[in-house]
Amino acid sequence: MKKIVFVGLGLIGGSMAAALRGFEDFEVVGVVRRQATADYALEHGVVDSVTLDPAEALPQADVTVLCMNPRQIVDYLSEHRNEFKAGSLVCDVCGIKTAILEAAEVLPPEVDFIGCHPMAGTEFSGVENSFPTMFQKAHFIMTPRKTSTPEHISLIRRMAKHMGCRDIVNTTPEQHDAIIAYTSQLMHIVAAAVCDDAELFQCRGFEGGSFRDVTRVAALDVDMWTELFSLNAPALSRILQRMEDNLHSYRVAVENGDVERIHAKLTYSSDRKRRMSLPGPGQFTLEELNK
Amino acid sequence: MKKIVFVGLGLIGGSMAAALRGFEDFEVVGVVRRQATADYALEHGVVDSVTLDPAEALPQADVTVLCMNPRQIVDYLSEHRNEFKAGSLVCDVCGIKTAILEAAEVLPPEVDFIGCHPMAGTEFSGVENSFPTMFQKAHFIMTPRKTSTPEHISLIRRMAKHMGCRDIVNTTPEQHDAIIAYTSQLMHIVAAAVCDDAELFQCRGFEGGSFRDVTRVAALDVDMWTELFSLNAPALSRILQRMEDNLHSYRVAVENGDVERIHAKLTYSSDRKRRMSLPGPGQFTLEELNK
Repeated sequence: MKKIVFVGLGLIGGSMAAALRGFEDFEVVGVVRRQATADYALEHGVVDSVTLDPAEALPQADVTVLCMNPRQIVDYLSEHRNEFKAGSLVCDVCGIKTAILEAAEVLPPEVDFIGCHPMAGTEFSGVENSFPTMFQKAHFIMTPRKTSTPEHISLIRRMAKHMGCRDIVNTTPEQHDAIIAYTSQLMHIVAAAVCDDAELFQCRGFEGGSFRDVTRVAALDVDMWTELFSLNAPALSRILQRMEDNLHSYRVAVENGDVERIHAKLTYSSDRKRRMSLPGPGQFTLEELNK
Repeated sequence: MKKIVFVGLGLIGGSMAAALRGFEDFEVVGVVRRQATADYALEHGVVDSVTLDPAEALPQADVTVLCMNPRQIVDYLSEHRNEFKAGSLVCDVCGIKTAILEAAEVLPPEVDFIGCHPMAGTEFSGVENSFPTMFQKAHFIMTPRKTSTPEHISLIRRMAKHMGCRDIVNTTPEQHDAIIAYTSQLMHIVAAAVCDDAELFQCRGFEGGSFRDVTRVAALDVDMWTELFSLNAPALSRILQRMEDNLHSYRVAVENGDVERIHAKLTYSSDRKRRMSLPGPGQFTLEELNK
């Protein structure tokens, strides 16, 4: 039986491990640091087996999935670079890719690496908040190396399909980081910035669904998001500047009491949102990718 | 049998009417402009009865709920001010209150008025998108007149409870509008501004839950939100300015690669979000209000 080893069983690692139990002829193995996590994972069926010893698991892994914060992944690749099995595939699932693909250069040439980013999650952390249906209908982004084998790319596709992902986008680390600065990182900063308003706590009892939705992810994992933002600062700065400009443009229209301009701007924005909600180019269905 | 008359059976009016069918000894009556809406409302059990003729319904209404856009409400109050029954209560359910309470001054002294704002909704419009469970666990805000009778205030409370609302906030129109600029109007402009980014359509396949949640309400009713923003421009301008400042502060930290500052800011914001999600002062439970 082949083995998929998850290093780290937090929110994403735990959810992905549980979603991949029963995948083809793979055993799902967890590598964790704390006994409590190991106990929880076994008791709740997150994995088939679990160990606290990387040296026991890594040399036997056909696929190793690193589910930690970005800088931990960078360090882990360096520390354990000689423990991965020749011919095996190593992946990660964190929210930036350029720094990770660069760090993966330390691996020996006989170990393949593919960056992965399943576009799902919640504002909570830890294995106790993980759930196997997290990735149902989510996009799955992968950034293979130029030298990644077709077999490994195909394997990632099948894993994503088994996890219930809606489609798979195959892109470069640079492209991933540029776009994710907008679709993910900006959303987290917007949510945080909304909560910075001095009147926040006077608002209890006045919030509805829009407030809850916009601010949901503000209750984020501070250490992880500090790393994600820091490692993608140039792209994130640019999109933050553009968001400031777009907000400012709305403010000018409102301040001037320019009803026609407000109407025109809302027509433009809402039309874009409706068009964005439709399926379109830029994504590929599993059927298309599996052709 | 007493009568609650809903003038307008759109998303909110339709949902509220349906939620109030069976409320005490009231018959729920709809007044609409289009025969198609009347047919739909009857076929789907949105109301007990429906008419296209306000002159038939208004003089018999013990409670009239105006469920239209703000300016339509202003005009309707003026046009129909002599058709409401003496001793009856007129309400509205729109998203601003100062302009509406001012407009309600045209009513004769024997007709009471209470502004209402149930804090729920979706990004869709029309009776066909209405549903009776919309207000489950939502906040219900009311802005009575100083002269509103205790009986009418109590009636609104019982209606909100029957609709499934979580609690009721009793406030002034000015306070409502100041806070709603933040909790509701800013969220809609943030959602719209995110969709104005030039790279929106290159992002398909890269979005996750945070993007969908933050932008959800951008697909808004343009006419209605133009009115809501225009009628609350001073308060909205102020909160937009503060949001720009808070976003800008994040951008400076990111641009400077100031990891400690990013970490400190995220610690601050995420802590505020977690505290905000807890129950707290500023709202009153139905039990407290019904004492």
